[in-house]
Amino acid sequence: MPAIAYQTPLRTDILRALDIPEPWSFGIADRVRFGELDALAHVNNTAYLSWLENFRINYFKDYGIADYSTRIPRIVLRQIGVDFLTEMRLGAEYVITGRTTSLRTTSFRMDYGIWSEGVLRATGWAVLVNLNDDSSKAPLPETARNSLISRDNPEVL
Amino acid sequence: MPAIAYQTPLRTDILRALDIPEPWSFGIADRVRFGELDALAHVNNTAYLSWLENFRINYFKDYGIADYSTRIPRIVLRQIGVDFLTEMRLGAEYVITGRTTSLRTTSFRMDYGIWSEGVLRATGWAVLVNLNDDSSKAPLPETARNSLISRDNPEVL
Amino acid sequence: MPAIAYQTPLRTDILRALDIPEPWSFGIADRVRFGELDALAHVNNTAYLSWLENFRINYFKDYGIADYSTRIPRIVLRQIGVDFLTEMRLGAEYVITGRTTSLRTTSFRMDYGIWSEGVLRATGWAVLVNLNDDSSKAPLPETARNSLISRDNPEVL
Amino acid sequence: MPAIAYQTPLRTDILRALDIPEPWSFGIADRVRFGELDALAHVNNTAYLSWLENFRINYFKDYGIADYSTRIPRIVLRQIGVDFLTEMRLGAEYVITGRTTSLRTTSFRMDYGIWSEGVLRATGWAVLVNLNDDSSKAPLPETARNSLISRDNPEVL
Repeated sequence: MPAIAYQTPLRTDILRALDIPEPWSFGIADRVRFGELDALAHVNNTAYLSWLENFRINYFKDYGIADYSTRIPRIVLRQIGVDFLTEMRLGAEYVITGRTTSLRTTSFRMDYGIWSEGVLRATGWAVLVNLNDDSSKAPLPETARNSLISRDNPEVL
Repeated sequence: MPAIAYQTPLRTDILRALDIPEPWSFGIADRVRFGELDALAHVNNTAYLSWLENFRINYFKDYGIADYSTRIPRIVLRQIGVDFLTEMRLGAEYVITGRTTSLRTTSFRMDYGIWSEGVLRATGWAVLVNLNDDSSKAPLPETARNSLISRDNPEVL
Repeated sequence: MPAIAYQTPLRTDILRALDIPEPWSFGIADRVRFGELDALAHVNNTAYLSWLENFRINYFKDYGIADYSTRIPRIVLRQIGVDFLTEMRLGAEYVITGRTTSLRTTSFRMDYGIWSEGVLRATGWAVLVNLNDDSSKAPLPETARNSLISRDNPEVL
Repeated sequence: MPAIAYQTPLRTDILRALDIPEPWSFGIADRVRFGELDALAHVNNTAYLSWLENFRINYFKDYGIADYSTRIPRIVLRQIGVDFLTEMRLGAEYVITGRTTSLRTTSFRMDYGIWSEGVLRATGWAVLVNLNDDSSKAPLPETARNSLISRDNPEVL
């Protein structure tokens, strides 16, 4: 496996070199920490959700959806699901891949893969909703919408 | 709302007094902690998974499935999903309810509700698998199976 | 050990019944969760800091220092120390005790004990500072100061 | 600031280029995650302890003290202290530095610095004890001892 940069957008060329197939085109790598293990010495299920959350922030920045520098956007998690396929252990290097697979006016669905040593360790999905400060639903800004459509080619619903 | 004991099995009578409807018959209460909030001052999505994990341990003990006193059982999480319905804030008292809704030889599905101030704040579900120490699937012990069937009346698949 | 309420202020009478000695006069009880264990099946060091943080919020409310209902106060942690005396395991019931032992114009020092099954499992201390919204130091309000002095008899520096 | 690799040992040359002074000679870099923030949008105090824990594992590997690949060693945290000097926010890149400053037969003391944008954000220290599987104290292996002495020049007590 090539050396990869952590917490840095990984593009198609690097993902393919890591045996991560199409259609994944955006990834973020990191390594399992001691504090993410549970008493059975496997990665605890809550850690996967932290990884996906952190992935989304990198993704939102790279796609120009939110930059988190002036304010934390109100793109909130409405649903999440994870399939745990193979246990992960301390020190394992992994890549999270994610893409937007469907898009509505105020919400969108993302799908995720968690890869380590060329093996898909978990899959996940989320529904995210854009909110106004008063928690009412807000249409996704046009620039965000265009970015998601042009880069991830989601089903537009 | 009546005063309720935290981290203690709540039965049907208390659940109904808290306006938690049938078919829920087992609950565990607690209160939102500061460390469970995120930068938007809402409960972070990972906290819900910790709550469900802690709920399962109470449930496994009460149902006689595993007691965690001599060893940590290998009933592992295979899938999880959560629908976040209403945001929760610091200090909110909540009750997690859960029940087994379907049962196979080596696995079972649980459904969950998270309630606060009489409102359903989130729903969830999980698929759990019983493993041998070598990570191969193991049939659920007969006593565990009988307990789940008699108390929760799951669909037996 | 008597049954004790979790996340509820415990006064001198209950603390003494639990063999927790003078001068401790305020405690908060809870139980070790699975998610607080590390890969050695002991409570992870970060969990103790979460417990102390949660203790402080209960203490601040009970002492009338901050109620966290309208805004999160800017009483921030400036220093913390913990001595880990005896390992703790899953399901252990524990009581955190804490008191203010010295007081300055804008800051105060608290000392803590963590007790389980009549044994002192850890001790800790913290220095807390009251800040304005612009992060400059602010004098503790007179009511907070009086409450700390009358209840905990700290050294006034 | 030069681009730096995360979760990878940083040596003297890189540390100096980052304006981290002598005597620090070993560092690990990373970036603040959303899940590490609290409701005031600052890094929560528990996150610093996770960072120090993760630092120690990298340090133990690099110094040949423990590799965590076959078993998790019983070098346990006996005491910890942190001084929080300047608040840290989302996305901040930081470097943890650490060294062993004193050494006894079965225990040693480490000191830490947490640096971001050329500013010391926090300092910390820990006392670590080597244990046998029965939790009795064990002398540090000679190779570990020699490595700590030759690389960090601690006070030998």
